[in-house]
Amino acid sequence: MQEKKINSKPIGIFDSGFGGLTVMAAITKLMPKENLIYFGDTAHVPYGTKSKKIVTDFSEKISKFLVANDVKMIVIACNTASAFSLDYLKKIINVPIIGVIKAGSVLSAKITKNKKIGVIGTEGTVKSSAYENEIKKYDKTIKCFSKACPLFVPLVEEGWQDGKITQDIIKVYLKDLINKKIDTIILGCTHYPLLKKTIRKVIGKNINIVDSASAVALQVEELLKEKDMLKKNGKGKYKFFVSDGPEKFKAIGNKFLGNKISKVTKKSL
Amino acid sequence: MQEKKINSKPIGIFDSGFGGLTVMAAITKLMPKENLIYFGDTAHVPYGTKSKKIVTDFSEKISKFLVANDVKMIVIACNTASAFSLDYLKKIINVPIIGVIKAGSVLSAKITKNKKIGVIGTEGTVKSSAYENEIKKYDKTIKCFSKACPLFVPLVEEGWQDGKITQDIIKVYLKDLINKKIDTIILGCTHYPLLKKTIRKVIGKNINIVDSASAVALQVEELLKEKDMLKKNGKGKYKFFVSDGPEKFKAIGNKFLGNKISKVTKKSL
Repeated sequence: MQEKKINSKPIGIFDSGFGGLTVMAAITKLMPKENLIYFGDTAHVPYGTKSKKIVTDFSEKISKFLVANDVKMIVIACNTASAFSLDYLKKIINVPIIGVIKAGSVLSAKITKNKKIGVIGTEGTVKSSAYENEIKKYDKTIKCFSKACPLFVPLVEEGWQDGKITQDIIKVYLKDLINKKIDTIILGCTHYPLLKKTIRKVIGKNINIVDSASAVALQVEELLKEKDMLKKNGKGKYKFFVSDGPEKFKAIGNKFLGNKISKVTKKSL
Repeated sequence: MQEKKINSKPIGIFDSGFGGLTVMAAITKLMPKENLIYFGDTAHVPYGTKSKKIVTDFSEKISKFLVANDVKMIVIACNTASAFSLDYLKKIINVPIIGVIKAGSVLSAKITKNKKIGVIGTEGTVKSSAYENEIKKYDKTIKCFSKACPLFVPLVEEGWQDGKITQDIIKVYLKDLINKKIDTIILGCTHYPLLKKTIRKVIGKNINIVDSASAVALQVEELLKEKDMLKKNGKGKYKFFVSDGPEKFKAIGNKFLGNKISKVTKKSL
């Protein structure tokens, strides 16, 4: 099948660091033919505790770098950056751009039965009310309860995905949401899927866990199909850029992606 | 007493964020007459997980900003920045500059009896071996055992200075050091003094805890005396600059400093 030139262009993905690799993994699993460029802003990681203004500034610089690298679309694989900067980036960037908030919101709104959804994320994401706003667009009668969980990212980065301490911390953070009788919880940070099993142990079997990563991958596929931009032939190639510590990114990143990272290039913002 | 012009110039202090305020507090307590300028690099916080190159780059930009603001000396109130950039900054900055590593190292080397010292800090500080190198300069026969404790900073920033979970995390990190029979432990990160009471509960009464903050304040006083640059009259005035989130810095900073922060100015690096 003849490939249109635009279809073989890469999808651009960015995050403050490693977390967005969970989104990248979901995209490569669903669309193994797609080329991808990943940017991790490791000089500024984490975004979750920083201001809307500065996160938007970082996101703009990265998006312009990706456009300069001829991407066909951009995925903001970071909840904080999606919450803070998506609306602004849509106005100034000339390729389709999607964040991680909408996909998880719509999916949760579809599956909740008692219309009580819990949202967990960084301080920035929770304060922005971005998930709640998206969910309310879909169904105004849904009640959202949110909780910032600032220790989850460092726990994941420390490799403490399970164990008693991690369970105890999860219990503290999720206690109020469980008391509110939510039937669905959104993992509103790209690091959190790595805690999914331990979160499941704490909250039991009866609460749906919505992991944005796979929901976003479906949204990306839908968008590319709609615009007839899906790559149809060959195996995808991946490029990685970071703003600090390429060697460290490669080592940790390969744990996320299963040794798919052979080279990481440093690029200052 | 007539004040020489240079004596009334401020001391410049910097850190990646809030942590260095523990050093500032120790300096203002010991030398309440001194004027101070504090810079918190909140756009890039934390430094502890970032590369030597980029931390040195940030430190150089901040030092030049402080010199442009006419400081009489600079205190690097961050262990990671001290470990990575002090030697380089000494070469390029024209005012006296000290880090937090030497003071804590010398103090520990003086008080250890069994010559076994534990050092805890960020990943960057521990990997640099900066404490061990300083201690060995003082006494080659001392054995150092170090442990990176990446969860301590987020625990402090989350306000979880005590409680069972924090004790459990401290136990995990310090287990090996305790097994090595250390008699002295250096809190090699400016956030850690806020965990001091809980660390004391975990390690018992028989291990000396060395908190660099007060040791550095003594070193600053000594240096200013030696150069006849101590400010002799009046009450000190304080200025605060951050690279992101001045309002948030003011709120958290006032918890560290007891409401001494009235204004925080944003300054991009």
